[in-house]
Amino acid sequence: MTIQLYDLVGADPARPFSPHCWKARMALAHKGLKPEVLPVRFPEVASLEGGGGRTVPLVRDGDTVVQDSFAIAEYLDDRYPDRPMLFEGMSGRALTRFVESWMQRAVHPYLVSVAVLDIHDLQDREGQAWFRAKREALFGKSLEEVQSGRTPESAAAFARTLEPLRVTLKRQPFLGGETPRFADHIVFGGFQWARVATRYPVLPEAGDPIHEWFERCLDLYDALGRRTPAAA
Amino acid sequence: MTIQLYDLVGADPARPFSPHCWKARMALAHKGLKPEVLPVRFPEVASLEGGGGRTVPLVRDGDTVVQDSFAIAEYLDDRYPDRPMLFEGMSGRALTRFVESWMQRAVHPYLVSVAVLDIHDLQDREGQAWFRAKREALFGKSLEEVQSGRTPESAAAFARTLEPLRVTLKRQPFLGGETPRFADHIVFGGFQWARVATRYPVLPEAGDPIHEWFERCLDLYDALGRRTPAAA
Repeated sequence: MTIQLYDLVGADPARPFSPHCWKARMALAHKGLKPEVLPVRFPEVASLEGGGGRTVPLVRDGDTVVQDSFAIAEYLDDRYPDRPMLFEGMSGRALTRFVESWMQRAVHPYLVSVAVLDIHDLQDREGQAWFRAKREALFGKSLEEVQSGRTPESAAAFARTLEPLRVTLKRQPFLGGETPRFADHIVFGGFQWARVATRYPVLPEAGDPIHEWFERCLDLYDALGRRTPAAA
Repeated sequence: MTIQLYDLVGADPARPFSPHCWKARMALAHKGLKPEVLPVRFPEVASLEGGGGRTVPLVRDGDTVVQDSFAIAEYLDDRYPDRPMLFEGMSGRALTRFVESWMQRAVHPYLVSVAVLDIHDLQDREGQAWFRAKREALFGKSLEEVQSGRTPESAAAFARTLEPLRVTLKRQPFLGGETPRFADHIVFGGFQWARVATRYPVLPEAGDPIHEWFERCLDLYDALGRRTPAAA
């Protein structure tokens, strides 16, 4: 039975943008699994699969429903251990949690601060209203105030934030070593989110090891990432 | 034949302080190996084992000399695969490089900015002169200027820098998962450096997951880390 992936989209169902859904898309492709992708919009997410405050990515594999990108990756390795592994051992999962935490705490806030209005604009009319209401409640300020990061100072600080990633990728082609692992998909998800949502430059320029790595990631799995065009 | 570890000390040979040497000490203990520890002072390091600009930690195991803490950890897993592993697979090594890069680029600069004068003061007279000359050349300013981080603003920024570590250790007892791996020893090395060198508070307070994790690390291997007293 084909695995189903509920994947977040805005007005255009062909432009998935969620960083967390991209992690799941890449994880499924890493395992050689071709899911049936079910596009969903923000207002529909909470009531998916019986509701109760669902989030995406959400995967249905036969009778099994798995929510949360990391849980999906762990599920895929557990369920399909004969396919290329997303993690090497339990310590691989544990170390990858640090990469996830670094992305969530050090990188994503900057991406939001430069792209939140563009992310808003990707949604259809109903989605825009939903997004603005939920995000403004979460941040306690207007989206226009949240998008405060488009300054040279913020860009310079972000370049410093990326130093650990840069140093690592100068040494090795992927965070996972010679080949990608789920840690790569986690970081890819964030940069792909920015690539699809905004023309504001987030990715370091050509020649930077992070740029070269991102290009390698875009090429993975028959160019799965590249097939969704960048914001134009 | 007993493995020898050249370990950096200052005026007191019983107070090893180097973060990189602590990584190697912890790695050897992790493998159940009890090295003969050879204390060396800064001015002696470059001419160790034939010279040519040596650095510490430096390990001699029979005819093999290995320099650099990460290389030592990899060597120990390669040479002693029947003992507890510091890394799980090649992707474990690759992911641990990210932790190393994060420590070096995001954490160590702050530690230097609050403790460099205390590190200077740990050295004997000759070591102090060496340290001041080398570090002032490296930083292009006086040690007094390098030690610019003892402000509430810097402490607050450092607390934010530690968020990815905090979030990870809230979820699991060690970076490596249920048991420590070399990634833990890398981060431990930095905080142990601060613990031994300075009374300036660097470690988050009791109740913080990082604090609890550090206490667990101090207890590892018959309390190897705890046996070197904190700065007083």
